[in-house]
Formats: sequence, structure tokens, C-alpha cells
Amino acid sequence: MTEPHQLDAATIATRVAAGTLSVADVAESLIARVDARDADVRAWAWFDRDLLRDRASLLDEVPIKGPLHGVPIAVKDVIATYDMPTAHNTPRYRNSRTGVDAACVDTLRAAGALIAGKTVTTEFAATLRGGSTRNPHALTHTPGGSSSGSAAAVADWQATLGLGTQTGGSTIRPASFCGIYGWKPTWSSISREGLKMSSTTLDTLGLYARSARDLMLLADVFAIDALEMPAPASLAGLKVGICRTPHWGKALPATVHAMSQAVALLRQVGAEVTELDLPGIFDTIGESHRIVARTEGRAAFLNEYRNTYDLHDDFKATVENRSGITPGDARAAYRHADHCRGLYDDIASAFDIVLTPSATGEAPEGHDITGDASFNSMWTLLQVPVVNVPGLVGPGGLPVGLSLVGRRYEDRKALAIAELVGAMFNQRDAAAA
Amino acid sequence: MTEPHQLDAATIATRVAAGTLSVADVAESLIARVDARDADVRAWAWFDRDLLRDRASLLDEVPIKGPLHGVPIAVKDVIATYDMPTAHNTPRYRNSRTGVDAACVDTLRAAGALIAGKTVTTEFAATLRGGSTRNPHALTHTPGGSSSGSAAAVADWQATLGLGTQTGGSTIRPASFCGIYGWKPTWSSISREGLKMSSTTLDTLGLYARSARDLMLLADVFAIDALEMPAPASLAGLKVGICRTPHWGKALPATVHAMSQAVALLRQVGAEVTELDLPGIFDTIGESHRIVARTEGRAAFLNEYRNTYDLHDDFKATVENRSGITPGDARAAYRHADHCRGLYDDIASAFDIVLTPSATGEAPEGHDITGDASFNSMWTLLQVPVVNVPGLVGPGGLPVGLSLVGRRYEDRKALAIAELVGAMFNQRDAAAA
Repeated sequence: MTEPHQLDAATIATRVAAGTLSVADVAESLIARVDARDADVRAWAWFDRDLLRDRASLLDEVPIKGPLHGVPIAVKDVIATYDMPTAHNTPRYRNSRTGVDAACVDTLRAAGALIAGKTVTTEFAATLRGGSTRNPHALTHTPGGSSSGSAAAVADWQATLGLGTQTGGSTIRPASFCGIYGWKPTWSSISREGLKMSSTTLDTLGLYARSARDLMLLADVFAIDALEMPAPASLAGLKVGICRTPHWGKALPATVHAMSQAVALLRQVGAEVTELDLPGIFDTIGESHRIVARTEGRAAFLNEYRNTYDLHDDFKATVENRSGITPGDARAAYRHADHCRGLYDDIASAFDIVLTPSATGEAPEGHDITGDASFNSMWTLLQVPVVNVPGLVGPGGLPVGLSLVGRRYEDRKALAIAELVGAMFNQRDAAAA
Repeated sequence: MTEPHQLDAATIATRVAAGTLSVADVAESLIARVDARDADVRAWAWFDRDLLRDRASLLDEVPIKGPLHGVPIAVKDVIATYDMPTAHNTPRYRNSRTGVDAACVDTLRAAGALIAGKTVTTEFAATLRGGSTRNPHALTHTPGGSSSGSAAAVADWQATLGLGTQTGGSTIRPASFCGIYGWKPTWSSISREGLKMSSTTLDTLGLYARSARDLMLLADVFAIDALEMPAPASLAGLKVGICRTPHWGKALPATVHAMSQAVALLRQVGAEVTELDLPGIFDTIGESHRIVARTEGRAAFLNEYRNTYDLHDDFKATVENRSGITPGDARAAYRHADHCRGLYDDIASAFDIVLTPSATGEAPEGHDITGDASFNSMWTLLQVPVVNVPGLVGPGGLPVGLSLVGRRYEDRKALAIAELVGAMFNQRDAAAA
């Protein structure tokens, strides 16, 4: 039979509300799963079984708080939690505790969520250097980063939902590598207060689930804008733009094949698929992302630099501005980004949704590097919503996700289309099976 | 003789470093000043004499940490401090403590600063409703807001430096009303981590001092970009743009007179003063500011809304989107702001500096409302550096400040010019006296 840790959030919340499932049973099922898998996957930076049991029993005692009552959520360890340490995978904050929750955790608790624990992040979620977490689909491969632990935990049924962050590609890339749904909302449509700050322009809360439906549930909890028009009932007639981006040259066979598979499947079901060729001004958007990230990172990590002797050299290089970014460079990068946002909004308004790669390919072997964010950073700088849709598989047998990109505040439309596209991918798997 | 609490930061730090002044003596002098004035001015939300004495004696025991060793700094009570409550002037956070400092406080402590206490803010720094603080120049008048306490404390010699925040006009307006220097840095050039979040696009740390020189000292501590060209040695030949803004109609006689005084004085000293008429597209920038602030505020205060029963209706109205802002409205406001930033950068590049009002006039009588932010919010949305220069006086005998506005990352140039303009205003006072 299906164990509680295998259920999706909507099912857990429904059964708990109906009294047919206790939060204590959800917690025990989750603890058993973590006990069985943690030595291999290593997703958790902090997992306190006694605290989890205590929180679960409290949730069983109180009236139903909201649509996530009893749903276990993994929280990336750069996101503040009042009752667990927030250590940022860096020596200075080992066992450091904030007296208050991050705004997103505060909102999730108000909806009845069971905060399961803190998950492994790369240092300050701001380096490509891998943490200890392994890809549940292939332990010798990276789960991606920087939201390594949350993506792996959700993919491995060690949490029902997960919170990550994205400044480059830290939410979408791990979702692709781990074969789950990942959602980077419209910038600032969910509060990022209480998340470690790296770049004000780029930092975004990221959300993980094993179904699009569960991401929609999170959209409800976070009061995301309603659909401007009714959600499409099917993919037939849907206008889909295929954006290979200026970084297409970096796409490996797995991603090239996944994109062609998706295009073929979309055409089969009657979607209007057309190529979206971005104007030349977008060619240098990756460079503007780098300049904005470094410029804001200089300010963001100054206090760590001034107060920490063992800070990693990556951060010292940023604060010392070793790459020699000038105020003129920064002004130009902000202008370029501002200009491209308006331009992209015009371009995107011709489509219902845009399809683009989530990563260069399957999760690379090894744990030192978490992969290449080239296909993600552009969308982060444009501040538009992105949903990773799993379901396709690469030549190595590992998941290959694809990104659906909407216009600002079109998050619910992107999630609705993601559900249809995900179902299409799964039917293909069924057919192939 | 001059008491330590009357000295500027540079002098205190120099004497402490030379061993001619102890931090303990600085603390005692400050405590005596607060004891004498707090019942009238009411600047402090938290002022712990024992803690202050303890921190001061610690600073006397350790080697000189940096350029602010022993300098008392007032911290707005929406900015996190690990050793004092951060209460946001709202019931939910009364006596609430964060385990970590805000990034800016962390950096100031590394420079040896003596964190003096927490100062009165309007609720969450996000309403125009006044706090308990009174204007030290006229107790029946507002000190401005939302950084009411920090501005009043610095103006009243109850702190040497102060930290505030600005989302609309919360740093510059109180500086104008209280007759001190106020600096809103280029957006994201100083970390805003650990400040209560209201609007990601707008929230900016603000800094207060009684001299431009002390603000330059803070620019050093926060590693603000070096000047791109040597600082002007005099105002002669300086290209000054006079920007009356689309809100000029709201200027009261005090501000109208102050602007003409400044123009006349600048011409006398040989500055090239020309009117800067913004193109029509800037006419609606106040409306775009409102839409961006409300849209981001909706997300920022959702967790408070979900967890607090006695939240003020102002915040409920924002979270419930009672003004009915649509996703289309938000997209249009972001595009408008993005477009105006680039346009303004072109316009501003024709001047060394832009002069504009800091407020509609003198500090209004009463404490219910903290004044009108119309002359500030545009610059906050444009994310450019602004320095309030004190020295002029209105018909009511109260201070009237004027703002100097630079391009992004021209903070040091704006501060250097502010020192010259401030000296010019003071010579005029001397002449008039």
C-alpha cells in the first residue's frame, strides 16, 4: 500500500482534514523514509526527529489551520526558521538560530505545514561548489545546486514539498536533474524576506513538488494572482514559443533530444509551435546577469567578509571586486536588463507560453560542481516565472526537465500548462513502456 | 567645553584611537543627553543603559577595530540587532529578538561602532501614521517618518550617526524636517538584509549624520565605489540641474523659497545652474511607485496578515489588494519604471548633480501624519543616490533641506558636492547672522 510519505500534498491535507490520516503518522512515515535513505542521499543539513514528532502532535491537537495541514516541507538551509538552525553551509553560522521565521515559512506554518527540517545548500547558496547531497537517481551524480537538498529530498520522497532559492539557476536546474516540478515565481510575488541575500535583483524563492497540482496548492497559499483568462483545457491550439536562447551551443545531446521530443509531442497534440528567435540584444544578457550578480554580491557579502576569517575565496573575490567591474559597467548592465525586460514582455505576449531548456543535459557525474546555469540565469534576470516540467529521460537514463516560461504574473497560467505538458510526457512514457 | 555626544563621528573615532577619549566616556555623555531629552523627544524604542555601558567597556578593552571605534549609532527598530529587540512598532514583534544582526549592523560592529539602541519607526516602516517621536526643533511638530527616531536622535545629539530606511521618502524627509544630513545610497549598494521588507524594488537603507564628512566615513565603511573622477574642489563651474519634479505644485512657500535661495547662492559662487525639465513620461512616475509598492507590499505583508489578528487595516488593505491592482497594471508599472531609469540616466549625465526638494516644506504641526513623500518617491523608484543637505530655514523657523541627486553609483560625488553646498548654506547663515 501507499505510505503517507509517498502521497502528494493535496492528498495528505485532504486526509488529515477528513480525520482519516494523522499528522503523527505522516511524520513517522517520513522519518522511516529518511532513516532508510539519508546515508545515501544526504539531503539534510538538520533533521530533528523529536522536534518533528512534537510539531506533528501539535498539529494533530489544533483545528485544521489551512490547506497544507500536516504536509511535510523541506526548507533550504539559507531560509530562516525560528526553531531550527540556519547554517548556510558555512562555518560562521554553524548552529546559528534566528529568532523569527522567514516570511515564506511563516506563511506556510499559518497554512498548517509541517516544517520537516533544513536541507543542504551550497555555501550561502552562492557558489557552484557542490554540497554533500547526491542525486537520488544516481548517487555518483550531482543533484544540482544550490538547492541541492530540497530537490533531492522531494525527488526521493523524503519530503512532500520543498523550498529552494534561485539567483542563477539554483531552483530550476536541480528540479531538472532530480526529475521533479520546480517553480521560480515572478520576482517579488512571494516574499524573500528571511532568505540569505546574494543579489536583490535576482534572488527568488523557489518551490518544489512532485506534481503541478501541488505547486498550484502553493500558489493558493501564497496568494498568487488569479488567472487573467481561463486556464487552457488542452494543449490543442496553444501558442508555444520554442526559445533555444543564445546559449543553445551549450546544449548536450540529452537536452537537444528532449527539446525535439517536446516539439514533436506538442505538434502531435495540436499545439501551434513556432521558433522564438530573440533579437541580438539578448546575446549578452548572460554577461549582464554576471555583472549585476557580482555588483550586488559585493554589497551582500561585505559583512561576512569583514567578520569572518575563513570565508571562502569565492566570496572574497566578489567583495574585493577582483573582476574589476566599474560603476559604468554596472550602470550599463542594469540598463541592459531593464531594456530586455520590456522587450521580452512584448515578444512573449505573442505566445501562451515559452518552452526552453532547464539545463545543458542530464545531471553530470561527480559532486564537486552542481552544473551549468546558462539556461536559467537569463530568466532570473528577466524576473519572469519559470516552471520545470519533468518526464523526459536522457541517454544516461537520468531525468531531463524542460522549462515553461510565462510573462510576469502569469505564474498560474504557466503552472496550468505545466500540468498538461507533464501529463503529455508521462503518456509518452506509458506508450514507450 | 564640548561634550563627547556633541562631537562628530570622525572626531570621536580619532580621539578614541589616540587614547585621548574612552568609549565609556562617550557612552556616559550620550546617556546623560538621553536622560535629559528623552521625555521630550521620545526618539527611542529601546535604550538599555546597562547594555550600552557593557558594550562600551568591551570596546575599550579590545584593539581598535576600525574607523568607527566607539561611535554611537542609533538603529531604526525595523533593522535586526542580535542583542536588542526588533519590534517594528507593531504588537506581534514586541520584545521579539533575532539571533543575528542585519548585514549593515554586522558591518558597523566590525568597524567598532557602538550600537546605541533602537529608534522609533512607524509600523513596519510602511505607513505615514506617526510614531511617538517629536521634532527636536519644535516638539509639537513631526520629525517626519518612517525613520522618525533615528533622524530626531541624530539631530538632538542623542546619537552621532543613525540608520533609517526608505521605501518612499522615509530617510530624506525626516532629514529635511530635523535639519541633518541624510543619505539614500544607490539601490543595493549597501545590503538591506535584516531590514523589514516592504518593497524589494524600493527598500533602501538610509544613513544620518550631522556632517557630510561623517557620511563619507560611512561610505568608506560600506566600501562604496570610489569616485570615477576627482571630487570637485569648489562649486564654481559645477553643472547643476534644477529639478522641480512633476510634484512642484505641492511645494509650500518654505520649499519654493529654499529652492530659489539655493539657485541664487549657487549662481553667486559661479555654478552653471540650469532648469531640468523632465519629459512628460515622468508625470506618472508617482503612480508607478504606488503600484510597485502596493504590489510588492501585498507579498511582503502576507505572512503578517495570515498570522496576526490585530494587524493595522492599512496592511490588510494592501494584502487584500483593495485598490484592485491587476497583473497588467503591475507589468505596466514595472515597464514604466524600467524605462524611466534608463531615460533619467541619460538626462542626468548632462549634469554634475541635480538639485530637487526634500519635502513640501517645513515639518508640519502634529504627530499623526509624518508628512508628504511626493518629492522623494520618484528618486526611490529610480534607485539613484540622494543626499539631503540641511542649512536653510523656513518662515516658521524650522529646517528646510534640499536633495542632491546623482546617477547610480555616484554616491561619493553627491556626498562631496553636499559638503560644499552645506558649507555654502552655512556661510549664508553666518552672513545673515
